[in-house]
Amino acid sequence: MSRLDAQLAFLNEADRLKSILRGTTLHDGSRRENSAEHSWHIMLYALTLAEHATRPVDINRVLKMLLLHDIVEIDAGDAPIHGGHDPARQAAREALAADRLFGLLPPDQAAEFRALWDEFEAAESDDAVFAKSLDRIQPVVANLQSGGGTWAEFNVTYEQLETRVASKAKRGAPIVWAHLETRIRAWFGA
Amino acid sequence: MSRLDAQLAFLNEADRLKSILRGTTLHDGSRRENSAEHSWHIMLYALTLAEHATRPVDINRVLKMLLLHDIVEIDAGDAPIHGGHDPARQAAREALAADRLFGLLPPDQAAEFRALWDEFEAAESDDAVFAKSLDRIQPVVANLQSGGGTWAEFNVTYEQLETRVASKAKRGAPIVWAHLETRIRAWFGA
Repeated sequence: MSRLDAQLAFLNEADRLKSILRGTTLHDGSRRENSAEHSWHIMLYALTLAEHATRPVDINRVLKMLLLHDIVEIDAGDAPIHGGHDPARQAAREALAADRLFGLLPPDQAAEFRALWDEFEAAESDDAVFAKSLDRIQPVVANLQSGGGTWAEFNVTYEQLETRVASKAKRGAPIVWAHLETRIRAWFGA
Repeated sequence: MSRLDAQLAFLNEADRLKSILRGTTLHDGSRRENSAEHSWHIMLYALTLAEHATRPVDINRVLKMLLLHDIVEIDAGDAPIHGGHDPARQAAREALAADRLFGLLPPDQAAEFRALWDEFEAAESDDAVFAKSLDRIQPVVANLQSGGGTWAEFNVTYEQLETRVASKAKRGAPIVWAHLETRIRAWFGA
């Protein structure tokens, strides 16, 4: 198989991310969002909001991480943050998915893409911390716009939101979180 | 209105791109693709296939162009390439859409994003030529995978494909096009 065959095989497999549905709906509530369009949207968040990152980020690396961050869901599925999944089990499934999916690529690209995904998952570098924060913030905005969304569906409490979402969102994008907080508290009556 | 209010207003409006349907379907033929997930997919094309560009490209600029390239469709709609629209009229609608949509942003970002979109539309720089080529190639791959797609729907001839698609695809990514050509010719019996 040629290098280009391998690359196209990866791109064809990636099409399936458009059929992975998330908990969150579109802002108009018309249907659940899929992980491909979600990835597009948070890349736009990154490009637009980079100036508000806790520490300076390399927007180009952030964009690449967000482009790749959910591809593992093709095999592992989306685990809604308020859905009560087992994090260790989900992480193991995602690692296997990363092996298979990035493994479709030529070895040099498989290693490059995998390193970006590993960095995102580790959430330690400034770029990854910011990227992870946006991954938490975009569903919050969607819930605010749609009138509650997954908060209503999963009976989320304000304390649960603090633990599962706010702590991570504030780490990389505290100014954005603070800006949304009045509306969030109003929804929760907190 | 604060700078962050303006940025969030833009990001909220952008959510509507997930409801703009294209002619092309998902590879499995299950439904039409929307312009947000399409944008995600061709960014992945760009990251994966950049080495095959006619001339060296700055992948970071290509990704940003592709991230933004279809946002105007929120107001102007998608004009399927084989659907027989009036290109001048569509271009005028898209320019108005760009004024309104990028105009939601703070002025410095509005100018930055608009410049990237204008560059993409002009299709003159090496980065834009490559980006445009991918925008032509991804629907071709989708049609091959889904068994014909918009080619069957719009009764496209091989000559029409040459004029509307191949000429532009070859300009920025001739190696990728050449790789696909045998399968394309087989579908068209050409």
